[in-house]
Amino acid sequence: MSTQPEHPTLLIPGPIEFDDAVLQSMGHFSQSHVGAPFVATFGETLSMLRKLFQTDDPASQPFVISGSGTLGWDLVSANLAEPGDDVLVLHAGYFADSFADCLQTYGAKPTQLKAPIGSTPQLPEIEKALKERKYKLLTITHVDTSTGVLTDLKPISELVHRVSPETLVIVDGVCSVGSEEIEFDKWQLDGVITASQKGVGCPAGLSISMFSGRAIKTFQNRKTPPASYFASFKNWLPIMQNYEAKKPSYFATPSPQLIHALHTSLTQILSRPLSERFAAHREASQKVKKAVADLGLKQVAPNPAEQANGMTAIYLPENVTVPVLLPNLLKKGVIFAGGLHKEIATKYIRFGHMGVSVTDPKRDDIGRAIEVLKSGLSDAGHQKA
Amino acid sequence: MSTQPEHPTLLIPGPIEFDDAVLQSMGHFSQSHVGAPFVATFGETLSMLRKLFQTDDPASQPFVISGSGTLGWDLVSANLAEPGDDVLVLHAGYFADSFADCLQTYGAKPTQLKAPIGSTPQLPEIEKALKERKYKLLTITHVDTSTGVLTDLKPISELVHRVSPETLVIVDGVCSVGSEEIEFDKWQLDGVITASQKGVGCPAGLSISMFSGRAIKTFQNRKTPPASYFASFKNWLPIMQNYEAKKPSYFATPSPQLIHALHTSLTQILSRPLSERFAAHREASQKVKKAVADLGLKQVAPNPAEQANGMTAIYLPENVTVPVLLPNLLKKGVIFAGGLHKEIATKYIRFGHMGVSVTDPKRDDIGRAIEVLKSGLSDAGHQKA
Repeated sequence: MSTQPEHPTLLIPGPIEFDDAVLQSMGHFSQSHVGAPFVATFGETLSMLRKLFQTDDPASQPFVISGSGTLGWDLVSANLAEPGDDVLVLHAGYFADSFADCLQTYGAKPTQLKAPIGSTPQLPEIEKALKERKYKLLTITHVDTSTGVLTDLKPISELVHRVSPETLVIVDGVCSVGSEEIEFDKWQLDGVITASQKGVGCPAGLSISMFSGRAIKTFQNRKTPPASYFASFKNWLPIMQNYEAKKPSYFATPSPQLIHALHTSLTQILSRPLSERFAAHREASQKVKKAVADLGLKQVAPNPAEQANGMTAIYLPENVTVPVLLPNLLKKGVIFAGGLHKEIATKYIRFGHMGVSVTDPKRDDIGRAIEVLKSGLSDAGHQKA
Repeated sequence: MSTQPEHPTLLIPGPIEFDDAVLQSMGHFSQSHVGAPFVATFGETLSMLRKLFQTDDPASQPFVISGSGTLGWDLVSANLAEPGDDVLVLHAGYFADSFADCLQTYGAKPTQLKAPIGSTPQLPEIEKALKERKYKLLTITHVDTSTGVLTDLKPISELVHRVSPETLVIVDGVCSVGSEEIEFDKWQLDGVITASQKGVGCPAGLSISMFSGRAIKTFQNRKTPPASYFASFKNWLPIMQNYEAKKPSYFATPSPQLIHALHTSLTQILSRPLSERFAAHREASQKVKKAVADLGLKQVAPNPAEQANGMTAIYLPENVTVPVLLPNLLKKGVIFAGGLHKEIATKYIRFGHMGVSVTDPKRDDIGRAIEVLKSGLSDAGHQKA
């Protein structure tokens, strides 16, 4: 029996449903942020992140900072790009626009390579772009939360290393870390930024990231000082290194409660092989996608190779509207999300299937949500439901 | 009976001990950040902050953003100062140096007015400085957490409004909001930034601030765009206004659990007159300060008018060292903090007395801590103990 009170099941692409033990860790009694017990918890958390990102290169550097996923864009933009640096932003939806906006704020020059809605930039056009100009960074939205489009990281990173080896490969993994396979070392990534409230399975409030030794060197060789204070590697690097070495250190007060919850979630995630976790997400995703097809509905991402495993963006039938459907689904006990991509926002809904909702055998969140979706569409007059 | 497991009492100048109900709110089940129930909770939280800061000017604008107290400096530096703007930083300890560092990061030109360790800049020198140059902002550390020095805001704000009325009055209230009286409107303040984990009584992870209509206008009249993305008023202002109007809105995902905890804490704080709360802090503080004097010890802040009511920084007797004393006090069940001000760090300890430890009649945290301190000093050979 769950210790949580009965509540509608939250199946949006983040925040997700959380495990009882994770929520209990959120209520941890107060601890000093520089006392030995909390320093140990924080240090272990940083070390566990190395495993989640599949990096054993000691030069890789994890960061956990109080903030939203958005703060990760500032970390990249204020520390790795300098004013005037060109950045190639691969655009697969809403979030590339915002990342570009952030880069521009700090003086970098983002060039967006845009794909049609529902797809992601293809290798030949990326290769062409990389050959036209020298880019300091290339950014990839691994899963765009607005469209459910998945971008395959490995071939892009290989391409960059072949065609423009000095370009750093940066991944926006806010909607992918924990639900999509990421092999930080093998795929030669330079930065992956994420947040706590999606595949990582811990309530919102933490910016989580991993940067390569090469990225850290790029920071250390800057000609200009970092362009942010709160998001400055200069301020955080010694702190993260000290915590991981179990030494107290102070720049800004971390949140012991959130770190305890992250520690609990990572301990649960790493208690089983990561391959099983990713397989569970693929399996749940296939179940959702089959149900969507059986309902005669289309996904925003039509190409199966470009469909995320942690969420599905579903076009509604012509006569069903978001403001009618979603409140009815809520009455039936499930919360889905509306559209987010400006150009099509009113035409689709988003179904998140990450974390305990897909990995906990005691839950049948996904099966139940599919039934609720069918029933809601039927109420709205959709014939195939 | 507390629902928290037995643990050493945390009496550092933040994080503080938290109320059971606040910690229980941290474990709130997952909610959509744009769903009606959470939007209502966030909106009420913002409205309650107006009461805590004692402002009923509708032009005042509260912000609650995932982050540390430190993020408040970025909010001020990136939105209210522009490159080249002069800022007068009143220095009463460690934290003015950092605020100045942050201002400089964003291109402002901070001038620090330094007081001797343990005191705060005096009105005549502030007046002289204000007459020498046109300052865009003046910043005041209300209580410097490194020294326990309290700076009286009201006469300084009056001075600024008389001598340099265009200068915005900005307060670092990280270690004062909730434990020291602040009358935002009456004292004509333009900005007060704080964090959740001290006098506000909610676990760390939230940057909380209040800005005047004048400050928001200064932002809106900027000649250059805000110099941060995550800390940009441009990004957050519509979000905060929408949440308070109970309308869903998205820039970055807030932490529903932390907002619930803040809502619980503010509800508790505002359930009694604020004047009682500040009186309770003054009373506890006097009790601690009397015990310190009775022990023959000196405070880092010698002048009673410049002593904080939420913490006390205490010089140790010559033969007692921090690394010997603090672990022994921990064994006796109380956690105090070591020194933080670089020049005197090894010579003093800090005793935090904020929040439920002073307001909850079911607790005797302060009385017990005083006994523990006496006993620890006696163990260390201090004769007056």
